[in-house]
Amino acid sequence: MTSKSEVLITDFYEFSMAYAYFKQNKHKQVGYFDVFVRGIPDDGGYYVFNGLHKFIDFIENFHFDESQLQYLKKTGNYDEDFIDYLRNFDQKISMYAVREGTPVFANEPVITIIGNLVEAQLIESFLLQCINYSSLVATKASRMVQVDPSKSYLEFGTRRAHGSDASVEGARAAYLAGFDGTACTQAGKKYGVPVSGTMAHSYVQIYNDEYTAFLDFAKTHPENCILLVDTYDTLKSGVVNAIKIAKEYLIPNGHKLKGIRLDSGDLAYLSKQARIMLDEAGLFDTKIVASNSLDEHVITDLLLQGAPIDIFGIGERLITSKSHPVMGGVYKVVAYMEKGQLIPTIKLSDTIEKITNPGYKRLYRFYNKDTDKAMADLITLHDELIDEDQYEIFSPTEPWKRKMLTNYYYKELQVPILANGKLVYKLPSLKESRDYHQKQMKTLWPEVKRLNKPHLYFVDLSQALFDLKNELITEKRNMAKHL
Amino acid sequence: MTSKSEVLITDFYEFSMAYAYFKQNKHKQVGYFDVFVRGIPDDGGYYVFNGLHKFIDFIENFHFDESQLQYLKKTGNYDEDFIDYLRNFDQKISMYAVREGTPVFANEPVITIIGNLVEAQLIESFLLQCINYSSLVATKASRMVQVDPSKSYLEFGTRRAHGSDASVEGARAAYLAGFDGTACTQAGKKYGVPVSGTMAHSYVQIYNDEYTAFLDFAKTHPENCILLVDTYDTLKSGVVNAIKIAKEYLIPNGHKLKGIRLDSGDLAYLSKQARIMLDEAGLFDTKIVASNSLDEHVITDLLLQGAPIDIFGIGERLITSKSHPVMGGVYKVVAYMEKGQLIPTIKLSDTIEKITNPGYKRLYRFYNKDTDKAMADLITLHDELIDEDQYEIFSPTEPWKRKMLTNYYYKELQVPILANGKLVYKLPSLKESRDYHQKQMKTLWPEVKRLNKPHLYFVDLSQALFDLKNELITEKRNMAKHL
Repeated sequence: MTSKSEVLITDFYEFSMAYAYFKQNKHKQVGYFDVFVRGIPDDGGYYVFNGLHKFIDFIENFHFDESQLQYLKKTGNYDEDFIDYLRNFDQKISMYAVREGTPVFANEPVITIIGNLVEAQLIESFLLQCINYSSLVATKASRMVQVDPSKSYLEFGTRRAHGSDASVEGARAAYLAGFDGTACTQAGKKYGVPVSGTMAHSYVQIYNDEYTAFLDFAKTHPENCILLVDTYDTLKSGVVNAIKIAKEYLIPNGHKLKGIRLDSGDLAYLSKQARIMLDEAGLFDTKIVASNSLDEHVITDLLLQGAPIDIFGIGERLITSKSHPVMGGVYKVVAYMEKGQLIPTIKLSDTIEKITNPGYKRLYRFYNKDTDKAMADLITLHDELIDEDQYEIFSPTEPWKRKMLTNYYYKELQVPILANGKLVYKLPSLKESRDYHQKQMKTLWPEVKRLNKPHLYFVDLSQALFDLKNELITEKRNMAKHL
Repeated sequence: MTSKSEVLITDFYEFSMAYAYFKQNKHKQVGYFDVFVRGIPDDGGYYVFNGLHKFIDFIENFHFDESQLQYLKKTGNYDEDFIDYLRNFDQKISMYAVREGTPVFANEPVITIIGNLVEAQLIESFLLQCINYSSLVATKASRMVQVDPSKSYLEFGTRRAHGSDASVEGARAAYLAGFDGTACTQAGKKYGVPVSGTMAHSYVQIYNDEYTAFLDFAKTHPENCILLVDTYDTLKSGVVNAIKIAKEYLIPNGHKLKGIRLDSGDLAYLSKQARIMLDEAGLFDTKIVASNSLDEHVITDLLLQGAPIDIFGIGERLITSKSHPVMGGVYKVVAYMEKGQLIPTIKLSDTIEKITNPGYKRLYRFYNKDTDKAMADLITLHDELIDEDQYEIFSPTEPWKRKMLTNYYYKELQVPILANGKLVYKLPSLKESRDYHQKQMKTLWPEVKRLNKPHLYFVDLSQALFDLKNELITEKRNMAKHL
């Protein structure tokens, strides 16, 4: 729990709505809201749910201090009753969410929030920000790791991150998704992500010559000596000097050259030549670290070319998810209570994909009993039962596409996080979530995980939910017609 | 000044280098470092320098607390002498920088840092993070505003921002570059950016019908009533109900309908039809606000189609600079002191554009005396004088391209920020920087500001700097050859 109140990291319209609910005496009415994403970045086959830890920290500290209240009063021109109401605000939210590290799919309700209209709106912006960025980077990192999980991956993006939160949360997200460490020191301190780092070009340039620069570094860091070899000329100067340092200083003193780092030029060519030079010098254990605008596609390409790179250092293209820097998580009301009745609600749109799924719902995943592979996800109304033996799924946009599932077991993906404002969930350690993510990734078929044109995993609606949705569409369209 | 120490928002290699300098007794040696960007996002003609305010906050609070020191000691396996040195660290940095809001160009030294090698390295990552993100969003916002500076622009991206810092800094950057406000409440509280906000679709959905939802909102916010009209059907339902509210409630009670907001569908068509409906109802003052994945190109397109949109609300494509989410600012050593001598240094690369400009330098801008338009920028060595009457500039990559400047006045763009660790600069208010940016933009020719294939503004090196660079290239390449 942090002491920093982030309660104003909120779109101001949340306060405008809250004030309207309060003044019109609707603030005690309970609403049901879903979080889901409509599309997956980079046209990927899955995304990695993440960011829950940050929201828990926020909600546990949810309160308004006096300077925030005075700012709101002045800015919104609110009356003192409303400010008093915020001053004494005691959130009673109930929340269900998917576990961090779970691979999930478009249109699935990964979070369900139940709360009065004020509290449910006031958390919207921050909740989405937490989930969107943390899931974005975890997803990008997972794509990179899945290229070859036997390689090592390090996060190097702090200087290009969109602010200090982004650097720390991005490093955590990368580790969750299978990275081995980060250069971001604060991510090490705050979250226990392993940190590492060697030298910049400036370090080499400050010396009159590269050899002396390397020697001083080796003397200071004999146990952990990785040398940056591309300041002047990688093969003619950098690797030659690195090998000299190994033979003339490190090995005679009982150490070894842990690695060399390439940060420019043709990484395929340079890594191959450097490997030959290192091996000829007997430095078989010296690792090759490569960095410089890497992403999942460049890594794939390097490995296809046989580049003997052991460790990939990934900067801007991970921390900003450069090729697709937006996770489009949205927060939509799906039902509300009125006179003891749960009323499902819907948002219309010209395209069926953008119409929300109404009602208070559950999310299930079906696994094959023999292979443990995920077969399909199913969204149902909250009170539906699922047959243990067979279940017919169908595409919600092309309902003639039907498939009978058999030989399965299923799991509910959302678990209780908050009950009436109290935390009822023990957040796993980051390491546990990382292990969990790796296990979950094994339940997905390779066809779902591949980078290009992945197989579209089934995310289907139950017949009852599908029928409810169509009823509401008809009802709302008729309502507009009769104006 | 904040109490939050962000001193570990730092790549760990800065500490590895600092430890090597300390152990090898080089930590008192003074280095000179430049910040510059190699390329401008979106192939733009200029970028907007920003982020200085955040770095000033950081450096004024630069210290290590005990828990940070203990973390570093354990993680880096550092000895107690070094930890003691950090514990008592008193930075003595001198710093020069371009003023926030200045349009600048690739390869220009926008910041020069002079400090001992330890302090100069320890600030690198955070400094770059501040400048990169704040300049990135300011640049993107400036591109949008320049499409039509007479329109109004609002920042709506909090939920898609890469963390809470990004939402607040991004909103500030947008305002600096000419936006009129933000939805991010904290940006209002922290920086005084005007905030505004109306309602989400959920607000409309919670009611049984749109009319009642609008009426309750109008009753609560009669002075500031902007209605979101696309929940069910924009023209058949939303605009019809909004007009009813104006005529049946707002106008009879002495108010007016301030605006309607369109958030989906064909914004060109819908805004034209909505304008006709509003005008027919006599609501000539009611503004049309449009949002939904807007950027400078979509705005251009809407305006070319004659869309009568008054206010653009811009979310993810601004706050993440979606089309180009990375500002590639780098921090390079350019000189160091050795035995009282200032030694210039260089980083080689296979391409001339990536070779750094060596030496302690100054940055000038030449303006035409008659038009006040910027003619060229010039980078010189620190001790060069500039002729008041004529100056021949030439392209550093194509030196046969020469041009004689006359009838000019010039300004030095960097100003002193820190002198031996002390702040010697009074940061302008955000409003002052916003005004300054608007004035500076008028000094650029439209050809430099246009979105597509802008004219390449001249950023040239003095003859002395050009000669020094070539000498050092030859020297360092010969050094590699002789290994």
